Amino acid sequence: MSSTSTDTAFLAGVEVFFFDVIGTVLDWKGSVPKQLRVVVNVEAAVDWTRFVVEWRTAFWNKLEPLASEETVRPGAIDIIQREALDTLLSTPPWSHLGELWDDQKRQEAVTMWHKLNGWPDSSRALYALKKHAVISTLANGSVRQFVDIAKHADLPWDVVLTGELLGGYKPNPAIYHAALAHLSVTPAQCCMVAAHAYDVRAAGALGVRTVYVRRETEDQEAVEGQGRLCDSVRPKSEGGDVDLVVESLDELVRVVERVKGAAAA
Amino acid sequence: MSSTSTDTAFLAGVEVFFFDVIGTVLDWKGSVPKQLRVVVNVEAAVDWTRFVVEWRTAFWNKLEPLASEETVRPGAIDIIQREALDTLLSTPPWSHLGELWDDQKRQEAVTMWHKLNGWPDSSRALYALKKHAVISTLANGSVRQFVDIAKHADLPWDVVLTGELLGGYKPNPAIYHAALAHLSVTPAQCCMVAAHAYDVRAAGALGVRTVYVRRETEDQEAVEGQGRLCDSVRPKSEGGDVDLVVESLDELVRVVERVKGAAAA
Repeated sequence: MSSTSTDTAFLAGVEVFFFDVIGTVLDWKGSVPKQLRVVVNVEAAVDWTRFVVEWRTAFWNKLEPLASEETVRPGAIDIIQREALDTLLSTPPWSHLGELWDDQKRQEAVTMWHKLNGWPDSSRALYALKKHAVISTLANGSVRQFVDIAKHADLPWDVVLTGELLGGYKPNPAIYHAALAHLSVTPAQCCMVAAHAYDVRAAGALGVRTVYVRRETEDQEAVEGQGRLCDSVRPKSEGGDVDLVVESLDELVRVVERVKGAAAA
Repeated sequence: MSSTSTDTAFLAGVEVFFFDVIGTVLDWKGSVPKQLRVVVNVEAAVDWTRFVVEWRTAFWNKLEPLASEETVRPGAIDIIQREALDTLLSTPPWSHLGELWDDQKRQEAVTMWHKLNGWPDSSRALYALKKHAVISTLANGSVRQFVDIAKHADLPWDVVLTGELLGGYKPNPAIYHAALAHLSVTPAQCCMVAAHAYDVRAAGALGVRTVYVRRETEDQEAVEGQGRLCDSVRPKSEGGDVDLVVESLDELVRVVERVKGAAAA
């Protein structure tokens, strides 16, 4: 699919790109199983990818009810990750692993979410976008987590905004409003970039511009009659509800460079 | 003055450097008068340096009473700058300028505080320190202000923390505590770097490590019997109250590289 100038004109007015991080910029499903395999060092064959997918689901199930609350503790994300891990390790078919993991090993596993690898295009795309606009995280993590990841994956954020800094978790509208206020932008002057439909839809409902990125690990669940959720998300030009759909951050860079180049000419 | 290994051993345990920004990293007194001279374009001779010094004093007088309050608005710093400017322009000997400046010109002047130049060593020192530790702002500004400045002066912050993000202004102890919590560090694992005695003393009182930088524009007021305030600040090894005193950020980099190099060897 190639984006048309009608689709992309909104980008000329965008001063700030807000990025979701895990899944959108980072390949968690490729990163964590590899590290677990080495650190946990269990001889028996373990499907670490399945384990990590279930861990992430357990994490989300604990986080989601908190999104409507008004205050969060700094560092709470690591605590929620640990609680989700403990739940998983006490439940079949993983409880045999639970018997083998002491406190230190569990904390080491939580820290793996601070050392996720970027998708192949992430670092170079952020360096390119940074020349044209402010690039900021806007994600449900801790500040230290995203700072550690930025050093590990070479992500040159201009500013790191997180749910914990802004006082709550996405998709709570207050969080998007707080991010806009801190960057002194109107909704039309900024753009949420995410690989999750719930996130771009929550931002879009406030008038924020939206770019949806199809990533192979995200929004893979089936939607009745529409294939995978990631395929069902469509740009407004095709009757959908987001401003632009891209297959990679490289594609977003090409579009931004075309639009910003045209605006400067 | 050359720092000894006794003075500098504390740096081995430091994971995060928090920097004050305006005055410590940026030369406001060299930057704003130059821009004012061009933009305001008044034919009569005006002592713009004196004007900007008085503006900064008026700003501080408005900010200081707010430091003990618990909440601040995003973008409030720009509003306080504008109020301080309006006060100045309504008072002799500047009221003749006040008659010439419309709303647009006044807002343009406020925006000059988003385009301050770094000291000659600031950018290269931050790039060097970033290899050894997390580098963060911790200053009484707005997020947008520091993001604009970082792009203008090429300051590669890992994270931008401001009074407005953390809910108050330095030297309120709550702000330093919040910064520590978001970076998941103990007081001994981080270090406040500032050219203002009040700031390093407030951080030091909480157990945070402290580096005082002597800058030619900061802490110049006379202290009875001790010369200028900046000269009266001394390291603990000389009976003073900060961990280290440096004449430049270059000097801090040399010390950190020596300590971290020795720790790695």
